[in-house]
Amino acid sequence: MGDEISTLMSNSKNKIVLLRLRNNKTVRGNLQDFDIHMNLTLHEAEDISDNKITKLGTILLRGDNILSVSLPEEES
Amino acid sequence: MGDEISTLMSNSKNKIVLLRLRNNKTVRGNLQDFDIHMNLTLHEAEDISDNKITKLGTILLRGDNILSVSLPEEES
Amino acid sequence: MGDEISTLMSNSKNKIVLLRLRNNKTVRGNLQDFDIHMNLTLHEAEDISDNKITKLGTILLRGDNILSVSLPEEES
Amino acid sequence: MGDEISTLMSNSKNKIVLLRLRNNKTVRGNLQDFDIHMNLTLHEAEDISDNKITKLGTILLRGDNILSVSLPEEES
Amino acid sequence: MGDEISTLMSNSKNKIVLLRLRNNKTVRGNLQDFDIHMNLTLHEAEDISDNKITKLGTILLRGDNILSVSLPEEES
Amino acid sequence: MGDEISTLMSNSKNKIVLLRLRNNKTVRGNLQDFDIHMNLTLHEAEDISDNKITKLGTILLRGDNILSVSLPEEES
Amino acid sequence: MGDEISTLMSNSKNKIVLLRLRNNKTVRGNLQDFDIHMNLTLHEAEDISDNKITKLGTILLRGDNILSVSLPEEES
Repeated sequence: MGDEISTLMSNSKNKIVLLRLRNNKTVRGNLQDFDIHMNLTLHEAEDISDNKITKLGTILLRGDNILSVSLPEEES
Repeated sequence: MGDEISTLMSNSKNKIVLLRLRNNKTVRGNLQDFDIHMNLTLHEAEDISDNKITKLGTILLRGDNILSVSLPEEES
Repeated sequence: MGDEISTLMSNSKNKIVLLRLRNNKTVRGNLQDFDIHMNLTLHEAEDISDNKITKLGTILLRGDNILSVSLPEEES
Repeated sequence: MGDEISTLMSNSKNKIVLLRLRNNKTVRGNLQDFDIHMNLTLHEAEDISDNKITKLGTILLRGDNILSVSLPEEES
Repeated sequence: MGDEISTLMSNSKNKIVLLRLRNNKTVRGNLQDFDIHMNLTLHEAEDISDNKITKLGTILLRGDNILSVSLPEEES
Repeated sequence: MGDEISTLMSNSKNKIVLLRLRNNKTVRGNLQDFDIHMNLTLHEAEDISDNKITKLGTILLRGDNILSVSLPEEES
Repeated sequence: MGDEISTLMSNSKNKIVLLRLRNNKTVRGNLQDFDIHMNLTLHEAEDISDNKITKLGTILLRGDNILSVSLPEEES
């Protein structure tokens, strides 16, 4: 990832992020870590697709399933 | 990316770009940054598919989901 | 994988993990080993999709089929 | 790309090319630049699928979406 | 593949393995060899999908089609 | 490509080849050039799918869309 | 490919092989050559899917379309 993109991700650590996945699911959680493949670890992850909330706990999500990462609570 | 292509992308920073995605969605936003994989960060992103506008906020979009990037407001 | 992600996976060895796959199946088992491609070996693996349990025994699962890995019994 | 293929593409710069895409769309435009991944920039691009013409402006099109590039106005 | 994963595969040589494929087929056979891409050779391979048995003889199966490898007769 | 495969392709230059594509289309044309990714340039290309002939002119076809290349007029 | 796998393929040169493809087609032919990507050349190739035989002549088949290679006439 480009430097600024990596910085943006780093700034989102320990914040709530919203992941749109390629399978049309939406997952929300507290970003713990990520790598250059956009593999992510989330705490207190929830699948919030289809107006339902399913608790997922701590998950490792493979980056190649991700469409986009939203940072709804970023205030900078 | 080739040099000219990278330059074109760089010239579009802080401008509104229109992304057509492989899943047939269309996303519009203010281009902040990009990397060699065409991973992009957008400010004030909006999903404008299907004649609806859904606010997405600041997003990081994985490049492998992109079909094309339009630069509708480029005047050079 | 990033160092912390690799650490998280290592800490899950000999614990029960829950795998969501790209084909919508869900597999549960005792994590034995993994590599940088997220290829995993599981003991006492079970396919628990569709409210049925199918015993799989010891399996090697290719990482490129994985959507996410949940660590439901992690207490740290 | 092989040398001759690269030369063919280079000779098509500033000419109208016709792109058939993997999603069955057809796009026409003035080729500005390309890179080794077949990422292309087009001026005055138009989606001409389904007997309709939709103006796209200047676009950057990811090469991995391309089926073929036709050079209808090449006279060499 | 990680060392332990490679060891597990090596220990399965000349044993019956069960392959679940990405196209939902199931293939069983005597594992002869494998490489780092999980390309496998099987003796006396059988397609056992859909409650039918189709003899395949000696086959080379490309690893990128594999979902998982089960080792049902492993006793260690 | 292996040496003999590359030689076979080279021997087919300036001959008519028949391409079966992954999207089930069939394209015929005079092979001009190719590279290690099996990207090909064809002169007087024609889409001959579905018992119709559509003239394509000179095209560059991305190799990752190809299923097979037939050399129907090879006499060696 | 692993050494033994490559040897197995080499031993099959000038023999009839049966290819199952990812698009569910089955192709039979006399193996001429192959490379590390499992790209193959076949003489007297035939599409034998759906209980029909279609002559294909000499073909180059891209390896990434292959599910498995059967060696029905191997006697070693």
